[in-house]
Amino acid sequence: MSAVAEILSELESLRLIDPHSHINPHSASSDTLADILGYHYYTELSHSAGLPRELIEESGIGPREKVALLVPSLSAIENTAQYSWLLEMCQVFFGFEESRIDESNWEALYDSSERTMQAQDWELTVLEKSGLDQVYLTNDFDDPLEGFDTHLYVPCLRTDDLVFQLQKQETRDRLTKASGVTAKDTGSMRRALGALFDHFVANNAAACAISLPPDFAPQKIADQRADVVLNKVSGNLPLDDAEQQDLSCFVFWSLAEQCAERQLPFDLMIGVNRRVYESGVYQGQDLYDKRVSLIQYRQLFNAFPQVIFPTSVLSETSGQELVSYAWIFPNVVPNGHWWYSNIPVFIEQDCRSRLQAVPRTKQIGYYSDMYKLEFALPKFAMYRRILAKVLATDFVGDRGWSVEQAVDLGRQILRGNVETIFSK
Amino acid sequence: MSAVAEILSELESLRLIDPHSHINPHSASSDTLADILGYHYYTELSHSAGLPRELIEESGIGPREKVALLVPSLSAIENTAQYSWLLEMCQVFFGFEESRIDESNWEALYDSSERTMQAQDWELTVLEKSGLDQVYLTNDFDDPLEGFDTHLYVPCLRTDDLVFQLQKQETRDRLTKASGVTAKDTGSMRRALGALFDHFVANNAAACAISLPPDFAPQKIADQRADVVLNKVSGNLPLDDAEQQDLSCFVFWSLAEQCAERQLPFDLMIGVNRRVYESGVYQGQDLYDKRVSLIQYRQLFNAFPQVIFPTSVLSETSGQELVSYAWIFPNVVPNGHWWYSNIPVFIEQDCRSRLQAVPRTKQIGYYSDMYKLEFALPKFAMYRRILAKVLATDFVGDRGWSVEQAVDLGRQILRGNVETIFSK
Amino acid sequence: MSAVAEILSELESLRLIDPHSHINPHSASSDTLADILGYHYYTELSHSAGLPRELIEESGIGPREKVALLVPSLSAIENTAQYSWLLEMCQVFFGFEESRIDESNWEALYDSSERTMQAQDWELTVLEKSGLDQVYLTNDFDDPLEGFDTHLYVPCLRTDDLVFQLQKQETRDRLTKASGVTAKDTGSMRRALGALFDHFVANNAAACAISLPPDFAPQKIADQRADVVLNKVSGNLPLDDAEQQDLSCFVFWSLAEQCAERQLPFDLMIGVNRRVYESGVYQGQDLYDKRVSLIQYRQLFNAFPQVIFPTSVLSETSGQELVSYAWIFPNVVPNGHWWYSNIPVFIEQDCRSRLQAVPRTKQIGYYSDMYKLEFALPKFAMYRRILAKVLATDFVGDRGWSVEQAVDLGRQILRGNVETIFSK
Repeated sequence: MSAVAEILSELESLRLIDPHSHINPHSASSDTLADILGYHYYTELSHSAGLPRELIEESGIGPREKVALLVPSLSAIENTAQYSWLLEMCQVFFGFEESRIDESNWEALYDSSERTMQAQDWELTVLEKSGLDQVYLTNDFDDPLEGFDTHLYVPCLRTDDLVFQLQKQETRDRLTKASGVTAKDTGSMRRALGALFDHFVANNAAACAISLPPDFAPQKIADQRADVVLNKVSGNLPLDDAEQQDLSCFVFWSLAEQCAERQLPFDLMIGVNRRVYESGVYQGQDLYDKRVSLIQYRQLFNAFPQVIFPTSVLSETSGQELVSYAWIFPNVVPNGHWWYSNIPVFIEQDCRSRLQAVPRTKQIGYYSDMYKLEFALPKFAMYRRILAKVLATDFVGDRGWSVEQAVDLGRQILRGNVETIFSK
Repeated sequence: MSAVAEILSELESLRLIDPHSHINPHSASSDTLADILGYHYYTELSHSAGLPRELIEESGIGPREKVALLVPSLSAIENTAQYSWLLEMCQVFFGFEESRIDESNWEALYDSSERTMQAQDWELTVLEKSGLDQVYLTNDFDDPLEGFDTHLYVPCLRTDDLVFQLQKQETRDRLTKASGVTAKDTGSMRRALGALFDHFVANNAAACAISLPPDFAPQKIADQRADVVLNKVSGNLPLDDAEQQDLSCFVFWSLAEQCAERQLPFDLMIGVNRRVYESGVYQGQDLYDKRVSLIQYRQLFNAFPQVIFPTSVLSETSGQELVSYAWIFPNVVPNGHWWYSNIPVFIEQDCRSRLQAVPRTKQIGYYSDMYKLEFALPKFAMYRRILAKVLATDFVGDRGWSVEQAVDLGRQILRGNVETIFSK
Repeated sequence: MSAVAEILSELESLRLIDPHSHINPHSASSDTLADILGYHYYTELSHSAGLPRELIEESGIGPREKVALLVPSLSAIENTAQYSWLLEMCQVFFGFEESRIDESNWEALYDSSERTMQAQDWELTVLEKSGLDQVYLTNDFDDPLEGFDTHLYVPCLRTDDLVFQLQKQETRDRLTKASGVTAKDTGSMRRALGALFDHFVANNAAACAISLPPDFAPQKIADQRADVVLNKVSGNLPLDDAEQQDLSCFVFWSLAEQCAERQLPFDLMIGVNRRVYESGVYQGQDLYDKRVSLIQYRQLFNAFPQVIFPTSVLSETSGQELVSYAWIFPNVVPNGHWWYSNIPVFIEQDCRSRLQAVPRTKQIGYYSDMYKLEFALPKFAMYRRILAKVLATDFVGDRGWSVEQAVDLGRQILRGNVETIFSK
């Protein structure tokens, strides 16, 4: 057996913790193939290949109809990594044996997969077949976090709305309701955020998390200035650009303070522009501007040495900066391979550079970013194959490591560091 | 036979359409080796290696003298991909059998190649040996498009001068003459452009095309504002920077409107700065600023969903953005590997990422960008070898595709999509 | 023997000139393992992995204590390329035979290495085992350049302080003392700089050198304006940002003029931000902003065609720009693989792209950037392995070159060009 096959085989036997997903813990697994094909990766690629959004998002469309609609587009996207996940899910979970899903065979697949997914224990079966011990969530700040096992589905506090949508009455109402505090100045804002953190920490939260636009550059805002802006906001007065920015910075900085106080990692997902393609399908509208630098986070990384920042970047051109910043900042931790960078060619480059220059204790290899539980399996499988190849080539081959040493490194990247960094 | 050899062999038997070149249809093939060595890639590399521009561009220098002048520089550039094209052309077209072109053998090569090129049917021979069915041109907007077979040499309307040089009297005179309309306000400008499009479409044009500087960010300009600027221009009044920019934006936007109306693709070649090295050789003066983002084209891509934009980027750091924008925008199509990115290391990266994340129906694999017909052969050969390697590795190897499936994908990228996207 | 092994073996027999280091010629080699482990790459990675700076930089800590302190951190960084250099040094120089340096074996290694390094001729032994014929230095502008063999340790004039710290009285005092001229206007500044160049050139200097922040964009400043700013500076008046920038530009431009006059190459190291991580260990505080472009050097490259600019870039995203600028500008020469880009994954990409598109006469393959002599061996070894692989794959494999041709190319990149470009 070759080194790569040996390493892969060992890594495949490893049980996993998925440190970032969008799973709804009340409906974690899929009910029909439509839940899987409804993932925005398939709808947006099908739309990109020519299927009108109006058809994809027709109101009242049933699951079988939706699959029937999408299947003819699959031939146009069968080259993509995303399609390869679909095929692997159908093969492993539903026993699909053909090499393509097309008009001739989708109905049989739909029916057999539906029967499989109707099993009472389907969710547990997926977890088991995928080797998942824990799945981290991304919860709205006002999520009650009730009715699910927070040791299996671990909460993370998503804070995008607080930082970027606080000028909306609706966001402030949600904050008041969730925290029991009306935030109209810096003191009450800190109390409100503190209440959210109390609630999340009491419910086993693993991290605070946020996605950030490419032009965001966090800075400490003086309380005096923040009070003025918060006062305008709570009086429903419009903010100009500078005020809006200072408001975002103040809330963001206050979140970092909460993380420091509670020793909670702060997941940064850097670089997304929302709604760039306004007529795109649901969740298929966001893109980015590669002209972003981690130098924008200089003040933050210096101000909070006690906070771990597991950091994801959207553009592959930020990959080396992430490696370099993690190389000297103790609190910067490269985290997974995000969205448009989550395809083999970019994963391989990032995986190699991180392994060559970042301490092995400070790398979180992969997360699924999934909406439905079935996706962990093919996504982690893709990553594991790349990781095994890099370990076999760069370490066993070029550096003369034993297979065992390489497997140890792989285990730490894939699982060990998730445990030590998030301490759950 | 290995998978890569099998795939390559199949792709080599494919006949081609070259969707972007600078061929002069009245003098498509070369007369002497000087036409080939005069290609700016060789003059600029020779100059970069130390040959003075004054010698290279000495007026009145004959073809044999020019080759005699350039040959001694070849040893300094024999490592380059560009030199490998030269060698391959000499081997395939002129039966050259040595491994280097140098002072000892160039004269024999010159003579034998001259005899070969003097054959009446040399142009046809090149087309045939290169497997070319059609070659797209890049025509000045006032090109009469007469005297050649537009089904073999397919016109494309080049619009750089209209968008960026309209402040020059000369450009406006050419426009008036070509269109029969004096463009002094938005209405007459639209009519003038319309007349150009009428002429090009009547002559089988495949696309409108333009190269754009890194700081260009197209926007819709209100007619009222554009009227003011056009009025100044036609009165020969100088424009300030903002007015110049608005003028460029207005004309560019009007071209997109024409494309929409006539269902013509609009080739965008994004990112070139002209005349950066002012003392460089002819066509060897342009470079770029990698700080450009496709986010600058957000408004355009949203405004013209019905126009296909085959898009080339000059910097390899824009490669992932192009993949990502093509992944969700139906009208964004990655197009070839342009200029400074047209060397194997960057082609391979871009080829892999596009195949992994862009619908297979939306990729134009390669164009030659050539000035003389002989260059299609080695350039497409270089691309085909890389494509065959990527197909064999990523698809047959990593994803378990059959060789036949991989060849189908290669055929579509190399030829099929050119036909469907440009519909010629 | 495979092509790669044959090529590597030939390249390993080559004697080297190291064209950029930070060696102190009065103490070139190490005395104890602490000199090696004290290299900022190990202290910063250990700190990044969790070791407090206060411990690493505790005053009065002895060499054995320092190694004892750092060794437990090594397990966290053993995956890094930097660690592989450490291991290779210990194996080759000190006969270390184990696969890891850890708590169980470091003391024996410390003792045996100390005995080895105590030999009178240790410095010569290192030079010999490393195959080094010459090592270029980076000297402060007021270095007396006395007491060492300038034909072995070749001086280079480092000019960072002159360009970026002239507003400090201390810098100006040093300049006055070193040059014998008090620089208070453009004339006296040029004379002062001229005196420094006289001194360096008389002492066999190979180059002028400087590292530059990402936002620096050199421009010619009119003497009249420079006189005003120099006058303020010498009167100890504070400068605003624009004045500070013009001062830097004026001094920088004057250095280029000196280089032109004396036919001295000007090493540019583009892209470093100093003190980004303010609490980092010594020399482990600097990072960068990848949003830099060589277009910022357009005016410089055009103004000084007679000056060779061996150019290093800090961000891998600048790699293609460097290739492209070197492709057409005769005076732009890609130089080595700097700092955060000096790990295999980035070296390989840059090595391949330069070999594919820059004349072979214009590439300086590698420099060590070392502070202690022992580092040349593992660093050049790392580079040579990558170079051999690229030559075997891209040239012998893909282009059908003979092994001998490939070795010739390798020799020129590694050694020949250093001789011709710096003419020492």
